[in-house]
Amino acid sequence: MAPRNAFYAQSGGVTAVINASACGLIETARRQRKHIGKVYAGRNGIIGALAEDLIDTSKESVAAIRALRHTPSGAFGSCRYKLTSFEKDPREYQRLIEVFRAHDIGYFFYNGGGDSADTCLKVSLISARMGYPIAAVHVPKTVDNDLPITDCCPGFGSVAKYVAVSTREASFDVASMAKTSTKVFVLEVMGRHAGWIAAAGGLASGKGTEIPIVILFPEIAFRQDQFLARVDALVKKHGYCSVVVSEGVKGTDGKFLSDQGLRDAFGHAQLGGVAPVVANMIRQGLNLKYHWGVADYLQRAARHIASKVDVEQSYAMGKAAVELAVGGRNAVMPTVVRKSNRPYKWGVGVAPLDQVANVERKMPRDFIGADGFGITAKCRAYLEPLIRGEDYPPYRDGLPDYVRLRNTPVRKKLGEFSL
Amino acid sequence: MAPRNAFYAQSGGVTAVINASACGLIETARRQRKHIGKVYAGRNGIIGALAEDLIDTSKESVAAIRALRHTPSGAFGSCRYKLTSFEKDPREYQRLIEVFRAHDIGYFFYNGGGDSADTCLKVSLISARMGYPIAAVHVPKTVDNDLPITDCCPGFGSVAKYVAVSTREASFDVASMAKTSTKVFVLEVMGRHAGWIAAAGGLASGKGTEIPIVILFPEIAFRQDQFLARVDALVKKHGYCSVVVSEGVKGTDGKFLSDQGLRDAFGHAQLGGVAPVVANMIRQGLNLKYHWGVADYLQRAARHIASKVDVEQSYAMGKAAVELAVGGRNAVMPTVVRKSNRPYKWGVGVAPLDQVANVERKMPRDFIGADGFGITAKCRAYLEPLIRGEDYPPYRDGLPDYVRLRNTPVRKKLGEFSL
Repeated sequence: MAPRNAFYAQSGGVTAVINASACGLIETARRQRKHIGKVYAGRNGIIGALAEDLIDTSKESVAAIRALRHTPSGAFGSCRYKLTSFEKDPREYQRLIEVFRAHDIGYFFYNGGGDSADTCLKVSLISARMGYPIAAVHVPKTVDNDLPITDCCPGFGSVAKYVAVSTREASFDVASMAKTSTKVFVLEVMGRHAGWIAAAGGLASGKGTEIPIVILFPEIAFRQDQFLARVDALVKKHGYCSVVVSEGVKGTDGKFLSDQGLRDAFGHAQLGGVAPVVANMIRQGLNLKYHWGVADYLQRAARHIASKVDVEQSYAMGKAAVELAVGGRNAVMPTVVRKSNRPYKWGVGVAPLDQVANVERKMPRDFIGADGFGITAKCRAYLEPLIRGEDYPPYRDGLPDYVRLRNTPVRKKLGEFSL
Repeated sequence: MAPRNAFYAQSGGVTAVINASACGLIETARRQRKHIGKVYAGRNGIIGALAEDLIDTSKESVAAIRALRHTPSGAFGSCRYKLTSFEKDPREYQRLIEVFRAHDIGYFFYNGGGDSADTCLKVSLISARMGYPIAAVHVPKTVDNDLPITDCCPGFGSVAKYVAVSTREASFDVASMAKTSTKVFVLEVMGRHAGWIAAAGGLASGKGTEIPIVILFPEIAFRQDQFLARVDALVKKHGYCSVVVSEGVKGTDGKFLSDQGLRDAFGHAQLGGVAPVVANMIRQGLNLKYHWGVADYLQRAARHIASKVDVEQSYAMGKAAVELAVGGRNAVMPTVVRKSNRPYKWGVGVAPLDQVANVERKMPRDFIGADGFGITAKCRAYLEPLIRGEDYPPYRDGLPDYVRLRNTPVRKKLGEFSL
């Protein structure tokens, strides 16, 4: 069989290491000349396929593709876009086949989280439903760590490392200031539905470096009285404490704590984070001086402090996706399989996409302490290996030397398509 | 003359590298056996002296003191405390002499910013006014970079590097998302009165890595219409932009932009940052999707991404302070002297404390672009060398291995003193 081209795109929120998956995928594809012609990247995810806005990655140098390994964000642009179901409207699928056929695309790689797995699954069905032969393989990526089956999700380890390192550093700071000034530091982290990222804050405290930390998980309904009692007790005992709060924390009424209906002086609704809400509670309820931070994009873009394990796994997922596809697999996703904790050993497995798409993995209850404010030894044993090792990018003039690709467009062969 | 003991303390907001100054000071003092006996550290700054709460640093191992060089925060605790003037109330000064005499302290080293320089200057006057022989030397430290005479302030370079790196990383992120999602990222940074830290955000954009960035300085009165017009123009041209906003930005009415009188659902005043205020303006005025972050303590505690130049200068300031003191100098502060930009060369100078205390150095107007939203080439030439080089701490199990000292107390010889 003559080699066919591959389509690769990035989807959803980007991470510090999604480009490492792109690197693994493109480098591996370049070694599969018998099976794969060129890798065309979709500009801005699946939208690039629908709009026939393709990037010819063969125009990028070996060095540029290698540099993707140490460059955060999505080098080809990402998107938040969900395909309509085939039953409702087959137009998008017909268009995809039209584009795939025009550019002889026989492999479809989609790099994203749960929603993207759904997109990839839908594309994989084209093969059977519409008689167009294509191998669709999903490449896992999400800082939320909420994909099922895989032991962890590429992207998570680096956010976890960032949050653990930052919490340790800020806790050292507040401990220094506590005598006459700030006694509580509140850090807001990502995780709308699952507390994996907040849990990583717990790693800041370790053997020989004990730190009083309160973690607020989206899985645990927030009770203000219990929270303030815990902060009060820790400050009385240690002189200070840190709070790591997930953006997704909800009250007992099921509403997001961040959605407090803040109004400005003119009565306009204001969108705020949850950190200032929690900080204000501490001020009003305990009269303690506080500081608060919101990590937001910094946490998921922080390639400068990426986890080495995470970078290696991200690269391995991209590589495995190609190997699965040229091996004739369709509608699957490579996974990280944990083989042992001490020493940490992992391998690559494979999961059927219909068991991945739209399934959300929350923190197991036995990963969260009985009081709901901390992580258990079991959780720690799970998390610790994922933040191991540093994988520093190269620097130029004091700044990380991240690559920007040329992103040369592939010449269009078809007419416009309105999304 | 028999060797006398030294007092060292840390004051004001701590930094990623103030302990590097402590390291330089203690290591140098240990080599000055002829002049200096022991180095006693004040627990929580000058309060440690007033309360006779002294730490015997001679109980710390060589390795522990060396590890201070890579450990952020204040290892002995800091304080926000200003001495009353001698004229108003001499009680504190009498107490200091009592403590210094009881512990044979002949050298006073205070490590801090402008307020601390004032404290150090007051202590230096004890010598003349009250006949107690002591050499008082100030060790410069402040992330705000607002001390006069010295070319830059230890602590600033590392915050600047953190802000530049974070802005570059987050900008790569928002650029990836902009097609279908977030188009503006707003990062709030420190700097209540001077825009030095915000200016460092401008370094994120450099040759080969151009990034559309709007900087909001406390030196420039904020005009909402001009700001929104600028963001709008950048987003139209580049598809996205980043905003770096100093916490100290004020409107044309002279009021802090962060002080918007936010109220919760019950009408209680809420303390917010300036980032959400700016983000809400972007939403209401331009209807663009945004994300915002507040770096807060993370920026000044981020030893994991400290500037090598900053670490070296911080160490050098601690070392020079000892050398000045044993050389018989009083009421002085070592400074960083810039000798050339390309290649960057610097040396150590000395400044009289009465020219340092309570003087605040703002950004020169010619460091800020004509439109008030960016930095000039002159500013860039000043800032660039200060973020050069990485000086990574050692890691254990994926986390920086920061030292915690034993902080063994010196036995008290005096009665209580009520502050």
